Amino acid sequence: MRKILVIGSGKSTSYLIKYLLDKSTEENLHIIVGDIQLSNAKKMIGNHENAQAIVLDVFDKDSREKAVKNADIVISMLPARFHIEVAKDCIAYNKNMVTASYISPEMQMLDKAAKEKGLVFMNEIGVDPGIDHMSAMQVIDSIRDKGGKIILFESFTGGLVAPESDNNLWNYKFTWNPRNVVVAGQGGAAKFLQENTYKYIPYNRLFRRTEFLEVDGFGRFEGYANRDSLKYQSVYGLENIQTLYRGTMRRVGFSRAWNAFVQLGMTDDSYTIDDSKNMSYRDFVNAFLPYSPTDSVELKFRHALKIDQDDEVWDKFLELDIFSETKMVELDKATPAEILQKILMDSWTLDPEDKDMIVMYHKFGYVLDGKEHQIDSTMVTLGEDQTYTAMAKTVGLPVAIATLAILNEKITTPGVQIPINKEVYNPILEELKDHGIAFKEKEVPYLGYNPMHL
Amino acid sequence: MRKILVIGSGKSTSYLIKYLLDKSTEENLHIIVGDIQLSNAKKMIGNHENAQAIVLDVFDKDSREKAVKNADIVISMLPARFHIEVAKDCIAYNKNMVTASYISPEMQMLDKAAKEKGLVFMNEIGVDPGIDHMSAMQVIDSIRDKGGKIILFESFTGGLVAPESDNNLWNYKFTWNPRNVVVAGQGGAAKFLQENTYKYIPYNRLFRRTEFLEVDGFGRFEGYANRDSLKYQSVYGLENIQTLYRGTMRRVGFSRAWNAFVQLGMTDDSYTIDDSKNMSYRDFVNAFLPYSPTDSVELKFRHALKIDQDDEVWDKFLELDIFSETKMVELDKATPAEILQKILMDSWTLDPEDKDMIVMYHKFGYVLDGKEHQIDSTMVTLGEDQTYTAMAKTVGLPVAIATLAILNEKITTPGVQIPINKEVYNPILEELKDHGIAFKEKEVPYLGYNPMHL
Repeated sequence: MRKILVIGSGKSTSYLIKYLLDKSTEENLHIIVGDIQLSNAKKMIGNHENAQAIVLDVFDKDSREKAVKNADIVISMLPARFHIEVAKDCIAYNKNMVTASYISPEMQMLDKAAKEKGLVFMNEIGVDPGIDHMSAMQVIDSIRDKGGKIILFESFTGGLVAPESDNNLWNYKFTWNPRNVVVAGQGGAAKFLQENTYKYIPYNRLFRRTEFLEVDGFGRFEGYANRDSLKYQSVYGLENIQTLYRGTMRRVGFSRAWNAFVQLGMTDDSYTIDDSKNMSYRDFVNAFLPYSPTDSVELKFRHALKIDQDDEVWDKFLELDIFSETKMVELDKATPAEILQKILMDSWTLDPEDKDMIVMYHKFGYVLDGKEHQIDSTMVTLGEDQTYTAMAKTVGLPVAIATLAILNEKITTPGVQIPINKEVYNPILEELKDHGIAFKEKEVPYLGYNPMHL
Repeated sequence: MRKILVIGSGKSTSYLIKYLLDKSTEENLHIIVGDIQLSNAKKMIGNHENAQAIVLDVFDKDSREKAVKNADIVISMLPARFHIEVAKDCIAYNKNMVTASYISPEMQMLDKAAKEKGLVFMNEIGVDPGIDHMSAMQVIDSIRDKGGKIILFESFTGGLVAPESDNNLWNYKFTWNPRNVVVAGQGGAAKFLQENTYKYIPYNRLFRRTEFLEVDGFGRFEGYANRDSLKYQSVYGLENIQTLYRGTMRRVGFSRAWNAFVQLGMTDDSYTIDDSKNMSYRDFVNAFLPYSPTDSVELKFRHALKIDQDDEVWDKFLELDIFSETKMVELDKATPAEILQKILMDSWTLDPEDKDMIVMYHKFGYVLDGKEHQIDSTMVTLGEDQTYTAMAKTVGLPVAIATLAILNEKITTPGVQIPINKEVYNPILEELKDHGIAFKEKEVPYLGYNPMHL
């Protein structure tokens, strides 16, 4: 039997492991799931005859090397910073490797060695990054194949709550790492291209410069800019593009309300508040507002943020109960971001029966035969429950499909790579359709940013 | 003759060197001014018989050690990061040392060695830090001496343009390092105490949370919070204070206008703009605004910042000519902050006949015999010309006076220190009065932040 080693059995691995187990008899596979917590690995494989759970501490060199040596291919589902030791072992023992993470500089440095040994190191093959690369490149290549010239590419992804579980005023719940949501957009200005001009948005304006997006059957969304819109410009071959924008999707109204936290400094993760442990939620909000012996925290908040008394955004803050005098922070020496995260988790944690949703929206503008065209391509995937989430499905299935394709020598180009070549994305996108992950394309008038077109 | 080594002869040393030269015959002093540029040092001493200019490269160990060894006391007027090598030599050769800079962690580490050798290492004895410490501690100690308990201390300093040279709409010109003005307030939230509550202001709100201050004879000013209001809380012995706030002074209206640059991200110094060299000022402003083929940069700017068509702040931006299509940035791969600095230097550079001004404002609230009191203390110093500036006077004279006092063994307490003790601040403040640097104190009703008092 051919042995697949899966390192890590966190919540993004449910579909990945299920897919491999379902194919194991037909494809003659033995699945070894390694986790630092044996119980986690055992839960994922159940009593399946073609699977085995092992203890694997990625920092324990001997057991890690032994597990890698024993496998025919290795999947690392650990947090991105832990891949590199596994990757070095894969080079040493001639094993192909698959991850859903961004290529780190250290991983990139293994490219030469992987090529020399003929090894496939496939990365960024989850959802974002992953399905975004594949679905975008399929359309971009098809436009190029018919002689079109790409002039606009915008791409948005959102991890949200499914409509049937969408029951709060923010239309948002934490479906992934809450911390990443609280600090999203920090660390430098967002940079992108609009009609051949570089544009920059500082953090404090990021959530006020949104675009609206409509997905058939799912209503309206908004998108705010990612920091790295130009990251894949050359990788996608878009050097001469006029507009290039990558963003994050939320339901309409989220960003305008979120901006209140940004403006007041409540998302800051760079310093700690000494007396945070004994603060009420109200004290926490008040720390970002001027002192007054008489004025209420509510009125100071409204005044600082210029929120009219009949503005619907106000209800969003009341819903979070941020003005509570009785709910306590209870975190010692916490940063504002950590405290805000705690407050939000009271309201935005998924209930056991809640389902999540992954939404992706691409816009492709191009010129063909002297005319401007636009294709909009959208994908929505809904979760089934809190184990079989949309996030786990869209992250795990591309990883699983790619792993089997590499094992079956259908993907053979060696080196540290991402899934932007036809040999990779065509069969994977095709198989993802069988699992309900499919893009809907439609031709729309090319709008660009010129109101003359409107 | 007693030899004083002054290292560095930049623009803050004019009064310092003049003071020492004026006293040289009477006090039997020989002044050695060392600079990497011999001509700079020569210019400062003229043909004075008791002075000598030498080439001194602080990174050339041999010449630096030789110069230190040859002196009876050493003044370092270099940028703060260059003091430490000089300080180590002073320890090695048993020399007292004076600087106007903040004590660095490396300097602080020399405290034990200095004490063991009986050496005075006096730091933070310019204007801010320096005169602020001395003038504040004099009042604080006097309040304590009569049995009062300090409940409020606010302290503001501004380096501004003198009223007679104040001829632009911002009421501001660069009288010191322009770069520090452009990036002022960045690097983390401002933290201070208001009525026993810690308050935090993020950078993007800093210039909208100002306080107003009135200085008799000089009109109104505003102050925005420094990042480090609590830095001297324990040093000043203010552990139980209710309100502690340190700020920077500008003329009223400056901060509200400056906030526009902050909001748009034009003060960011963390990334470079690739094509900055060929940008016009207008292109630069436009990079922070959404694309439009038809809307003017002016209207997009007004809209983004909600500036009404009849708002006086608008004229401030026009005065800077930031919408010019013909003025070019001409800086290669510059950060937004660097570009903004260049644009501002067109308008805010001192004319040859311009004079500068240093303003300081302290508020001391205290309780004595069960009653609340307040003393407001203000100081204004005007420059004479562009060599004998108020900045050079207020920085250099305390350094010079302290140096002579140490040489004459009137200041003898050893160790790495700042001027917060009576033996230091009383004689220096007294002598500063002879040079026109004097504080006006007045008793005012204690206001605190309680409108009941108003």
